[in-house]
Amino acid sequence: MTKQPKDLSVLFYETLKDIYFAEKQILRALPKMAKAAQSPQLRQAFEKHRDQTEEQIERLDQVFEIIGKPARGKTCEAIIGMIEEGKEVMEDFADTAALDPGLIAGAQAIEHYEISRYGTLKTWAGQLGLKDVVPLLDATLAEEKSTDDILTKLAMQTVNQKAA
Amino acid sequence: MTKQPKDLSVLFYETLKDIYFAEKQILRALPKMAKAAQSPQLRQAFEKHRDQTEEQIERLDQVFEIIGKPARGKTCEAIIGMIEEGKEVMEDFADTAALDPGLIAGAQAIEHYEISRYGTLKTWAGQLGLKDVVPLLDATLAEEKSTDDILTKLAMQTVNQKAA
Repeated sequence: MTKQPKDLSVLFYETLKDIYFAEKQILRALPKMAKAAQSPQLRQAFEKHRDQTEEQIERLDQVFEIIGKPARGKTCEAIIGMIEEGKEVMEDFADTAALDPGLIAGAQAIEHYEISRYGTLKTWAGQLGLKDVVPLLDATLAEEKSTDDILTKLAMQTVNQKAA
Repeated sequence: MTKQPKDLSVLFYETLKDIYFAEKQILRALPKMAKAAQSPQLRQAFEKHRDQTEEQIERLDQVFEIIGKPARGKTCEAIIGMIEEGKEVMEDFADTAALDPGLIAGAQAIEHYEISRYGTLKTWAGQLGLKDVVPLLDATLAEEKSTDDILTKLAMQTVNQKAA
């Protein structure tokens, strides 16, 4: 009962455009977050993840090339909302001990969004038989999970204790 | 160098209001997602999570009570964006084999947002010495993780194979 030829490969492409847009927004947000961070370790973590994000965008470019479709972004209101919330925290908690915990929380919300997206795309790529795409998505997925872990450790070990 | 008395407890309350708003939006979205789902297992999973969400909201009411602050929501653009994306998928992929994979992907994005929020709030509650709050947040966190796992299994086992 298929109304139109909209199947998993179309959904894959639409979701790819969503995360492509999101990564480009994140690339622009991370330097601001790094600049705002009080803890040098947190600043370093954001700077490192900015560089990773650049590579992640290149991997997405490769995926678009493999599937033979134009690399385009599609407005993702979810990521715009998360980055906006992060900006509010930077303004409302500037010069307070809660700034770094707030920055970490915002960054982890973004990481989890990405983890869900890359996990989904990787599964779909496998089911679509896109064998060269799976390792590209998997490499980024691993980086996002590792970034989330690093942020959790930073939050537990240093930042929050100062703020409480 | 604290400009104003905005510390971790204020940030905790603000983030609590954010997830309270999000949960109420999710409670309204889940019956629509259940109705749209083609697979009976997916429909059941959404219905079950709807009931869990009701309990999760009650737990948040208890947290507000423990910290002695009014239970209020605060507009969360991120969740509005995610639910909106889910609606688009329901419309664009209606009557196609990609509908269920799309519904699952949208639900998992939401689950991951919640996992990050409850993880953060639980950590902060511990650091603020809110001993009665930690188990409430932890119970919900476990449910969100379990829901995410159930959706991953459903996507892997049944839904995507039909759509590919």
